[in-house]
Amino acid sequence: MDIIKYKPIGVIHSPFKGQGGIPRQAAGAPEVAAKIEIFDEYVEGLTDLDGFSHILVIFHLHLMQKGSLKACPPWDHKEHGVFATRSPYRPNPIGVSVCRLDSIERNILNISCVDMANGTPVLDIKPYIPDLNPTKQIRLGWLKGKVKGMNKSKSGDR
Amino acid sequence: MDIIKYKPIGVIHSPFKGQGGIPRQAAGAPEVAAKIEIFDEYVEGLTDLDGFSHILVIFHLHLMQKGSLKACPPWDHKEHGVFATRSPYRPNPIGVSVCRLDSIERNILNISCVDMANGTPVLDIKPYIPDLNPTKQIRLGWLKGKVKGMNKSKSGDR
Repeated sequence: MDIIKYKPIGVIHSPFKGQGGIPRQAAGAPEVAAKIEIFDEYVEGLTDLDGFSHILVIFHLHLMQKGSLKACPPWDHKEHGVFATRSPYRPNPIGVSVCRLDSIERNILNISCVDMANGTPVLDIKPYIPDLNPTKQIRLGWLKGKVKGMNKSKSGDR
Repeated sequence: MDIIKYKPIGVIHSPFKGQGGIPRQAAGAPEVAAKIEIFDEYVEGLTDLDGFSHILVIFHLHLMQKGSLKACPPWDHKEHGVFATRSPYRPNPIGVSVCRLDSIERNILNISCVDMANGTPVLDIKPYIPDLNPTKQIRLGWLKGKVKGMNKSKSGDR
């Protein structure tokens, strides 16, 4: 199939300047604040977003140079297929996080619950709608009983 | 910022051959089944995925030729900024859906809860982990009280 090309709509300004110390999951970082700068040509698309408390941020994991088909989470020590993990070393390094939207000042979204490195290109923003998420008859596979460990983990703590 | 390039890891085989009649949200289509064909070179990445009941599918809305900064949902009749909607006509036409994973046969994922057109390129698959999703102090902005209408809506019913 053809290569797919996207143009970033904005960029993350976050306290995480390198690859170390970044929370591995947005849900594990309620206190971490950051800004999303939306580029001028896309600001019109933000209309009415300020009514939402949370947003889905789709971003490019720009520090990940090389994907892998296997991943070994540091808090699990077992290897799994990458599509059965949230590892950032993926064939297409796309991140999807639910962040709290604290306020919007023109083209700046002030967010918290942040697991993105500084300079991360943002590809898309969608409103977060819990009713779209199933809550019943969920099976978590190898992650059963381990989600707390995942949430507390930070990059570089291997 | 630089253009970002992704290579599809697979393709959706679904009953929706054109743009019409496609459920607008995966959550509104529990009975719709489809297959994700994962290309051979990525099959190793599926290891251990079969333990999960639901997956996050990240896909390219390949039928959407042109993005827009405003969207007018057919069941709402008011214009909103595209980032405050789930409209498929986005600057970067990326879809994110939670699908039920019914079974895996080597490189074929049998899924249900499907809102993708046939031939949709798949960019990434992640395990669905409800604990990563906030459930408290959620504000839904202009969508308040309208999520049911959104879930029942299909493309082409404008």
